[in-house]
Amino acid sequence: MADEAPFQFLHNEVIQYIYKSAETDNGRNIATLENMGYRVGQGLIERLTKDTARFKDELDVMKFVCKDFWTCVFKKQIDNLRTNHQGIYVLQDNKFRLLSQLSAGKQYLEHAPKYLAFSCGLVRGALSNLGVKSIVTAEVSIMPACKFQIMIQKM
Amino acid sequence: MADEAPFQFLHNEVIQYIYKSAETDNGRNIATLENMGYRVGQGLIERLTKDTARFKDELDVMKFVCKDFWTCVFKKQIDNLRTNHQGIYVLQDNKFRLLSQLSAGKQYLEHAPKYLAFSCGLVRGALSNLGVKSIVTAEVSIMPACKFQIMIQKM
Repeated sequence: MADEAPFQFLHNEVIQYIYKSAETDNGRNIATLENMGYRVGQGLIERLTKDTARFKDELDVMKFVCKDFWTCVFKKQIDNLRTNHQGIYVLQDNKFRLLSQLSAGKQYLEHAPKYLAFSCGLVRGALSNLGVKSIVTAEVSIMPACKFQIMIQKM
Repeated sequence: MADEAPFQFLHNEVIQYIYKSAETDNGRNIATLENMGYRVGQGLIERLTKDTARFKDELDVMKFVCKDFWTCVFKKQIDNLRTNHQGIYVLQDNKFRLLSQLSAGKQYLEHAPKYLAFSCGLVRGALSNLGVKSIVTAEVSIMPACKFQIMIQKM
């Protein structure tokens, strides 16, 4: 039994609920999910870093998100972290759990954004609580692989 | 780091969201949460019992819910299971995780139902998928201890 299953099932229910009850406007639903993720990310990272030494730099923060934070939520690490050293980071998860309920056919790819919005918010919330302001987007290349792109917003 | 934290934080967000955006009618919000729990419970139990031997009887089902199911969601077992052998079961959790964000003062007890509704649904959904139709209610005696009462509905 996968440990993350209760979280995963609840995540699916939240998407269903928001899309059924709230807005017909897809953009606003995505924003709602992203905001939920943001707050969950803030709460989680606060708990996770309680006893952690101070981070050296931005890259150090990213590594923590890729390892400890990702493992806490998705029970695996990010598979690949890249950066252009100019404020853009790309985190690749080759088997992203929250996409597992989505069929792999190309015709379903259009539904991917609603399964990624919460997680984009998660990352943005976690980084924000560590003092890194960012914009986070996600894209699916080949299911269920997923890339999260983080653009650091300089203060 | 507690394993169930992502689930717990998401659960809190769902409550916030439903109470903020949906209805002013408390009863309907409770029902919404209960229904979400019901579907999550159905999904989880299906996955959990995939390779399980058939259950002997109703009590056997209850024991599975108290041990395996509870551990999957809340990372601990139910502390006490009682029955009157006439279709009523009482499951007591002495440290119920989803109440942990609620202050222990008596004046906060009135907020308990919204933190319990989802879990009542969880149990009802799990049982229903195992062929046991029930009504599940919950009450807090001394925080954070919580009792779930299950009334079996005979077909």
